[in-house]
Amino acid sequence: MGIAVSMSGNGPSSTEPEATPLTGTPSGKPVVAGEGALNALSDYLSADMEACNRAIVARMDSPVALIPQLAAHLVAAGGKRLRPLLTLAAARLCGYPADADHQRHVGLAACVEFIHTATLLHDDVVDESQLRRGLASANAVFGNKASVLVGDFLFARSFQLMTADGSLKVMAILSAASATIAEGEVLQMATQNDLSTSIDRYLEVIHGKTAALFAAACRVGAVVADQPDAEEEALDAYGTNLGMAFQLVDDALDYAADQQTLGKTVGDDFREGKITLPVLAAYSAGDEEERQFWRRVIEDSEQTDADLDRAFALIAKTDAIAQTLARAADYAQKACDALAIFPDSYLRGLLMETASYTVSRAR
Amino acid sequence: MGIAVSMSGNGPSSTEPEATPLTGTPSGKPVVAGEGALNALSDYLSADMEACNRAIVARMDSPVALIPQLAAHLVAAGGKRLRPLLTLAAARLCGYPADADHQRHVGLAACVEFIHTATLLHDDVVDESQLRRGLASANAVFGNKASVLVGDFLFARSFQLMTADGSLKVMAILSAASATIAEGEVLQMATQNDLSTSIDRYLEVIHGKTAALFAAACRVGAVVADQPDAEEEALDAYGTNLGMAFQLVDDALDYAADQQTLGKTVGDDFREGKITLPVLAAYSAGDEEERQFWRRVIEDSEQTDADLDRAFALIAKTDAIAQTLARAADYAQKACDALAIFPDSYLRGLLMETASYTVSRAR
Repeated sequence: MGIAVSMSGNGPSSTEPEATPLTGTPSGKPVVAGEGALNALSDYLSADMEACNRAIVARMDSPVALIPQLAAHLVAAGGKRLRPLLTLAAARLCGYPADADHQRHVGLAACVEFIHTATLLHDDVVDESQLRRGLASANAVFGNKASVLVGDFLFARSFQLMTADGSLKVMAILSAASATIAEGEVLQMATQNDLSTSIDRYLEVIHGKTAALFAAACRVGAVVADQPDAEEEALDAYGTNLGMAFQLVDDALDYAADQQTLGKTVGDDFREGKITLPVLAAYSAGDEEERQFWRRVIEDSEQTDADLDRAFALIAKTDAIAQTLARAADYAQKACDALAIFPDSYLRGLLMETASYTVSRAR
Repeated sequence: MGIAVSMSGNGPSSTEPEATPLTGTPSGKPVVAGEGALNALSDYLSADMEACNRAIVARMDSPVALIPQLAAHLVAAGGKRLRPLLTLAAARLCGYPADADHQRHVGLAACVEFIHTATLLHDDVVDESQLRRGLASANAVFGNKASVLVGDFLFARSFQLMTADGSLKVMAILSAASATIAEGEVLQMATQNDLSTSIDRYLEVIHGKTAALFAAACRVGAVVADQPDAEEEALDAYGTNLGMAFQLVDDALDYAADQQTLGKTVGDDFREGKITLPVLAAYSAGDEEERQFWRRVIEDSEQTDADLDRAFALIAKTDAIAQTLARAADYAQKACDALAIFPDSYLRGLLMETASYTVSRAR
């Protein structure tokens, strides 16, 4: 997919770099491939992203000292800020003007990141995670109580940001997404340790916990740009499918990456008895002795130190990872297809390439 | 305060019982005293309250089975539903009509209860509580993970309910209250085990964790009735002061009630090293040996079985409870005074008497 091509001559213009979809790329094809796509997207939207980061820092503030302290830990941990980037990109793709009077997408991008961060904080408590993006998780440093309560604070702040935006339509989209995320997390908890979970049920979980917010992040970009329903739906479909691909790949990497690449503790899903496609595929392909292994480690949560290696080996000998990535590639393709409604542009190319990269990062 | 008087002849009219403020009470004084005031308030608003309970049950539903299961546990545990009652009462006091076209107060009352319930779920996780209203707490039955995630779901649902209401003003009030609650909870955590906490800081904590939602619950009642700022402010002040009184009394009861009266485990605050006015007052009044006791049990969290009895005894020998209740009585009086702006009515009398009862229940 895509060939890395020099960006010279195709870079954003100097005055309003994020405002000008560059349709002049000769082939109309994506100009940057792989990880470069995501970086190029960040670069292309850097002025918006900086405004968004300022909004995030400003709105994380509170007279209660522990809140900015914990927030600083989260900001330091960084992360790609993929979700707010999607809001910013969607707004620009829909022709939202780049001037001081049009900054709604910045506030909403911050709002989306707040929802995501609140979810991460609570996730790490629920999963008892010790690492997040390669650094000690907030609960490991500040304790579970602080993580629960600061998560609530960020969640409330996200609703204040939505309210400040003032669009009921936006609020309906983001509050519904918040409820769907929580439902996805509860469903994930309910399927934990249960190898009889169907693939459909697993897909429902990752739709809730990941794809719903990707979809909402994209959709609100179309809403601020006042686009017709078709464009809104298209961006929702892009976000949904990108989110599904993203989570499938994440689940594959938990059994196929080294810790440094992953930025979290490898084998976390395994230790938690989380039901993901690699496990379901390996379980389904296994002989009776292998299935007994999976039942012991996942359903009965009886694990020894050697079991993670065995799990890696069993998954490697089946097509579990290939199957997971093939599904991810399907979703990524659907994400690209959804953008066909928009005229060819440099930004559209970057969004398509980002979807492709989501899968290729695991290959 | 107040004398119990028969309600005969003063009951709500038969057709629209909750709609008619009964100004015909001869003296213009509250007609029901003590616990009767809260029951009379519930009775007076019973049609609204039933509609609110239906909204709560309907909006707690989800295709994810664990959510309605945990919700049913919460509904079964009951509780006084004081906060939604305040929204309903405030709307009626402000002349919000009682007909099928005017039901915004019902949805917002449900919304307020959702915010409160989400907070309770997370509180019980943070405090590791085993009992809530005399029954096993949700975290004790369903686990901490479910409580965190279902709390998030209810929080998201509350924002969907606000969005459905459609008033930006209401959303600003309730989302700000949600953020303030979280700040209050974080501040409470930060002061835990710290006997150098000032009384002002303690009052800040209880304002955040309790009074802010009481105030918002009342204020949105005025907003749906489209009342001028003065009435809105008056109801906010009523709610704030009632909430402060309510929490002070709650904190007193933790050292002065038997378990059955309290509906939670007596001594919970003590075991958690929570800084409340009874403890601050007893610590401040204590001699050096007593202060050493408090430092050991509260700051160092070194507690033996006999220590709770000693704490009760030390608090009983000082005026710690009296001091706490005197402050509560001041706030209750301020709550009553705030309602002076409204014409005398049966409902206003009930709200005043409810404030008085908040304190008298502990005497």
